[in-house]
Amino acid sequence: MSGNTFGTLFTLTSFGESHGPALGAVVDGCPPGLALSEADLQGDLDRRKPGQSRYTTQRREGDQVRILSGVFEGKTTGTPIGLLIENTDQRSKDYSNIKDLYRPAHADYVYDRKYGFRDYRGGGRSSARETAMRVAAGGIAKKYLREHLGVEIRGYLSQLGDIELPMKDLSAVNENPFFSADPDKVPELEAYMQALIKEGNSVGARVSVIASGVPVGLGEPIFDRLDAELAHALMSINAVKGVEIGDGFAVVAQKGTEHRDEMTPEGFLSNHAGGILGGISTGQDIIAHLALKPTSSLRIPGRSINRQGDAVTVETKGRHDPCVGIRATPIAEAMMALVLMDHLLRHRGQNGTS
Amino acid sequence: MSGNTFGTLFTLTSFGESHGPALGAVVDGCPPGLALSEADLQGDLDRRKPGQSRYTTQRREGDQVRILSGVFEGKTTGTPIGLLIENTDQRSKDYSNIKDLYRPAHADYVYDRKYGFRDYRGGGRSSARETAMRVAAGGIAKKYLREHLGVEIRGYLSQLGDIELPMKDLSAVNENPFFSADPDKVPELEAYMQALIKEGNSVGARVSVIASGVPVGLGEPIFDRLDAELAHALMSINAVKGVEIGDGFAVVAQKGTEHRDEMTPEGFLSNHAGGILGGISTGQDIIAHLALKPTSSLRIPGRSINRQGDAVTVETKGRHDPCVGIRATPIAEAMMALVLMDHLLRHRGQNGTS
Amino acid sequence: MSGNTFGTLFTLTSFGESHGPALGAVVDGCPPGLALSEADLQGDLDRRKPGQSRYTTQRREGDQVRILSGVFEGKTTGTPIGLLIENTDQRSKDYSNIKDLYRPAHADYVYDRKYGFRDYRGGGRSSARETAMRVAAGGIAKKYLREHLGVEIRGYLSQLGDIELPMKDLSAVNENPFFSADPDKVPELEAYMQALIKEGNSVGARVSVIASGVPVGLGEPIFDRLDAELAHALMSINAVKGVEIGDGFAVVAQKGTEHRDEMTPEGFLSNHAGGILGGISTGQDIIAHLALKPTSSLRIPGRSINRQGDAVTVETKGRHDPCVGIRATPIAEAMMALVLMDHLLRHRGQNGTS
Amino acid sequence: MSGNTFGTLFTLTSFGESHGPALGAVVDGCPPGLALSEADLQGDLDRRKPGQSRYTTQRREGDQVRILSGVFEGKTTGTPIGLLIENTDQRSKDYSNIKDLYRPAHADYVYDRKYGFRDYRGGGRSSARETAMRVAAGGIAKKYLREHLGVEIRGYLSQLGDIELPMKDLSAVNENPFFSADPDKVPELEAYMQALIKEGNSVGARVSVIASGVPVGLGEPIFDRLDAELAHALMSINAVKGVEIGDGFAVVAQKGTEHRDEMTPEGFLSNHAGGILGGISTGQDIIAHLALKPTSSLRIPGRSINRQGDAVTVETKGRHDPCVGIRATPIAEAMMALVLMDHLLRHRGQNGTS
Repeated sequence: MSGNTFGTLFTLTSFGESHGPALGAVVDGCPPGLALSEADLQGDLDRRKPGQSRYTTQRREGDQVRILSGVFEGKTTGTPIGLLIENTDQRSKDYSNIKDLYRPAHADYVYDRKYGFRDYRGGGRSSARETAMRVAAGGIAKKYLREHLGVEIRGYLSQLGDIELPMKDLSAVNENPFFSADPDKVPELEAYMQALIKEGNSVGARVSVIASGVPVGLGEPIFDRLDAELAHALMSINAVKGVEIGDGFAVVAQKGTEHRDEMTPEGFLSNHAGGILGGISTGQDIIAHLALKPTSSLRIPGRSINRQGDAVTVETKGRHDPCVGIRATPIAEAMMALVLMDHLLRHRGQNGTS
Repeated sequence: MSGNTFGTLFTLTSFGESHGPALGAVVDGCPPGLALSEADLQGDLDRRKPGQSRYTTQRREGDQVRILSGVFEGKTTGTPIGLLIENTDQRSKDYSNIKDLYRPAHADYVYDRKYGFRDYRGGGRSSARETAMRVAAGGIAKKYLREHLGVEIRGYLSQLGDIELPMKDLSAVNENPFFSADPDKVPELEAYMQALIKEGNSVGARVSVIASGVPVGLGEPIFDRLDAELAHALMSINAVKGVEIGDGFAVVAQKGTEHRDEMTPEGFLSNHAGGILGGISTGQDIIAHLALKPTSSLRIPGRSINRQGDAVTVETKGRHDPCVGIRATPIAEAMMALVLMDHLLRHRGQNGTS
Repeated sequence: MSGNTFGTLFTLTSFGESHGPALGAVVDGCPPGLALSEADLQGDLDRRKPGQSRYTTQRREGDQVRILSGVFEGKTTGTPIGLLIENTDQRSKDYSNIKDLYRPAHADYVYDRKYGFRDYRGGGRSSARETAMRVAAGGIAKKYLREHLGVEIRGYLSQLGDIELPMKDLSAVNENPFFSADPDKVPELEAYMQALIKEGNSVGARVSVIASGVPVGLGEPIFDRLDAELAHALMSINAVKGVEIGDGFAVVAQKGTEHRDEMTPEGFLSNHAGGILGGISTGQDIIAHLALKPTSSLRIPGRSINRQGDAVTVETKGRHDPCVGIRATPIAEAMMALVLMDHLLRHRGQNGTS
Repeated sequence: MSGNTFGTLFTLTSFGESHGPALGAVVDGCPPGLALSEADLQGDLDRRKPGQSRYTTQRREGDQVRILSGVFEGKTTGTPIGLLIENTDQRSKDYSNIKDLYRPAHADYVYDRKYGFRDYRGGGRSSARETAMRVAAGGIAKKYLREHLGVEIRGYLSQLGDIELPMKDLSAVNENPFFSADPDKVPELEAYMQALIKEGNSVGARVSVIASGVPVGLGEPIFDRLDAELAHALMSINAVKGVEIGDGFAVVAQKGTEHRDEMTPEGFLSNHAGGILGGISTGQDIIAHLALKPTSSLRIPGRSINRQGDAVTVETKGRHDPCVGIRATPIAEAMMALVLMDHLLRHRGQNGTS
């Protein structure tokens, strides 16, 4: 593969640039018989969509997904599912001034060096806009996992800057613009974000995702361990710089007696492992965390160079999220769903059971 | 793939159990003309090999690798390279008592549940013994990268328990049994480990890996980003629970102005990104960190169940590393080498240049 | 993969049903910098398009392809190329009568048995309509191969029923509705086809494809030999039941002295091998032949069963090609182009040269 | 992949040269619980082994296979199965005289041009010696298919030179050195072969393979159709120049009414399709035919060039099969078994049933 296909049996192949005519995807390998319509996917697309609050970019992207194939009389047929989102808000003029500049912390420089030139409109393929297709594709996997196995995948913002956001109530996540599972922290987050926007700066974030109801046995050691594939999937999201499973980096300072999850006939006594041992799901909740860097587009000027190698100053005027991590919650859920779905099918294939 | 092949153009396929007759691997896609002999691979195998100090397991594994194909008159031919290590120290009797037990934090339970039964001798396929083949295969990639591109890949132990080990001097790494790049900390580490062994406990660790000399342009967005593939590769190592690129989880609390690596005509002014932007190498050092959980085999008894679901107490008598993270340093280097090598070939393929 | 992606470095992923809203494809791995527009692809699409003569189906399919991504300012960017063809002529009513029938020699029965139900409109995914996307994608590969390597890929109809059509003049192929390289045979073909249409029957055909200018060295033994991948690609075309390279089945009765292509300092003295030895291109013309079965949809009634297992008689009323082999010529060219392109990139990747 | 791995869920990765120390393979994805020992694989290896009669090469290859992993207490564990055959009869001196020559119809020229140099001992990797590993791996698939699904895969020589060998009695195939299913033709074959050996020439052959008991539904359209994957697998065997499914090239001259396999409530009335429609198995016998070119190594001198481009005469003195097609029968069976096994697992994976 050349990098735009993910998965082995349940695959997502994606295309599209930020300011091209459309984004699209092919989801291949979906089992036949799943009831599916655009409405099933639109909910998560709307959660990811910008412009939902004053704390995310004010770009208006309709993000209306169309299913072009693979569904007949309301059910999946087992053939590939084509998905399309037309780009409706393409203000190319916002970006013409950066045509020859390399914005700091963006992919401008490396795309130019790798490919010889680049689609500079809104970051082209390197824009997080492509994650809309991940969310749509993940919605198919989520629906299958929920309806056929009772698996639920839920994400939340677990830290923004230095504000920690403990998981108090997952039902609150969709009730606030920050995907916070601690509704009491919302005022603090609002104050923080308003100051940040005023300052013209941005900040990092931590997102957590939990899958419950996952059966024992998913994951294919040694290289396609479930945790390794999750790390691949989550690290492939724009701006992610770190991935943890279970206790993650906290294990460095743990003793063996502290870390090991003991078992009794009633089940595990703890879940430091995050639901995965030896690369295979244990039946406990699967828990992953990801670290997202601060948005790279800032109103505060930064030093860089242009294509000719001259020193320049870059200052972003466009509409940007002050914290890209906020909208990453549904994306992380989608990527976890894709990994679990693919591994469910692989496990079935080799072991003949679901 | 069913999980035991890694890579797209430069691939490693691995087989072998801890106490089976042999471990083996096939390295496919190595460019022709690389001078290669067993001696080139043995050095890293010896670094990983147990029994090198009193702080690692006292099992004696010869770990002598044989090259069975793909090399003719001292040079690689472009055909697949077969590698074999015979297992010489197979004390199966050490393990018979755990045949029906699920050792806490081990893969015993999930292997039994996934496959219906398991090779219980020393963990079978789930043993870290298989990483010997990763080190051997990674040695081929390392040699090619060094000789053809000047890339150097160096790892070190950056934390053991709560002892932080800053990178002071990479040349010291192979001069102490801990792979510490801070030789002054060695006495503190020795004291810590002796206490740990006495206690019968284990501890986690953090390993860091740096690749210098990597050209700009490696990585295939959007799913096969270089960082995503590194995360996959590193998380697939036994006991790893977290992976970071560059500043990793520290980005959560960073502001955009703090994180972004500004550029001047002379180059980047910092490397918070860890050498990767938009999933593509920037030409700076590539920096990754991994968190390894404490060894699961402990002399201190733990609660668990047996295959019949009865409560049991598990106490490990065998020879085990009190900190598996120590020997992970050459393994992490090998996995980074495999990823870089594969992406070098993929980049050449699509872009027609090296 | 789940079957709808082809290739390793240069990949085609396809979706779409005969009577769904659209067909689409993602071409991933195209090198950057290739000048590309819809007009470059439309020519071959029009060659394949039905309704071009009275000897092919009278369905009117506009087959206007749109490029949705991967091209910027007229050149490929190295990112995936999204292609879309809207279906404009969807007469679903033609097909409602076959909803519960299994048409003989069609895929109706196996799709129902494999997936539990099927999109019965015009064969759904099993319709040859999907080959439009292969032709569009192959057009990209053809253009790259022509402009960067001087490779030309040309197909022709080499037999229709028992009328053999020797390769006399490749420039005549696009001048007659049969893709015959022997223009003198056209009247005989016309008479044959008119009788066939009157009879309500169909007939098989043989198509030949030649690639000239292919460099020495493409093909990856042992499983991804160039001939093996060509066989895969060509056999995947609807209705194909046989594939030959070079002398094909004639080699069975050949002696070694007769078959072997001797060499002199001026080059090969013959090309029985069809340009491939040991799975690797020799630099000679690559020659492949494929056998296509007669169209399965006939006006002459045939015995079959319905979904309930009852005996039924099936008679097709719709618009169908009396010989599907005729329109297969551009499809076969496209598949050969995809294979050569993929292997060019793979060879470059491993060997560092083009 | 770089060409030495075959399959998606059930994979074979192979290594080894004709005169290297050993051949080996990794079979990944075998379901757990299959009873397996070396003896299960040795039977087919002995059928393929040279030196079994005066009509095949007199090289003595022990071809004793060892299972190095993936089997515990007599049953497969679900982990990769390592296979090894040590090369015991390596008479390198036979080949030193061809070091700088390109033998006509061999892969010498293309390997040198592709890789820059080659292992010239007995053809190195391009030797048919590697097919021993395919036979061993195919034996695992055969056993699973037989025991779990009742699938039987049987091959026979269906033509040698111009002697057609109809399928009269499959039980006779292993009772004569030609794999002929028509025992009455054996004296004619013996006379033909003796004359051929005396002449110093070689001849082509046609091999047929039948799989009975295959369930409906295997095959993943559109690119991974069962017939397309079979074509890939069979064309990847050394010396194969053509592959047919069912009636193969005979369909070119067939009318639709003649070709279509009509159905009644009792089943299909014929099997022109060879058990595959729309790329999916129909439940009928799967029938494939392959054409193998005459052995390239001849005692009769032939014109060629050396590495320096000078004209030379090549005459082979070594031990060679006068008809490589004869020993191809077990290899073709093995490749069909690998394809069916892989598609069984893929079908199970996507459709959740076996």
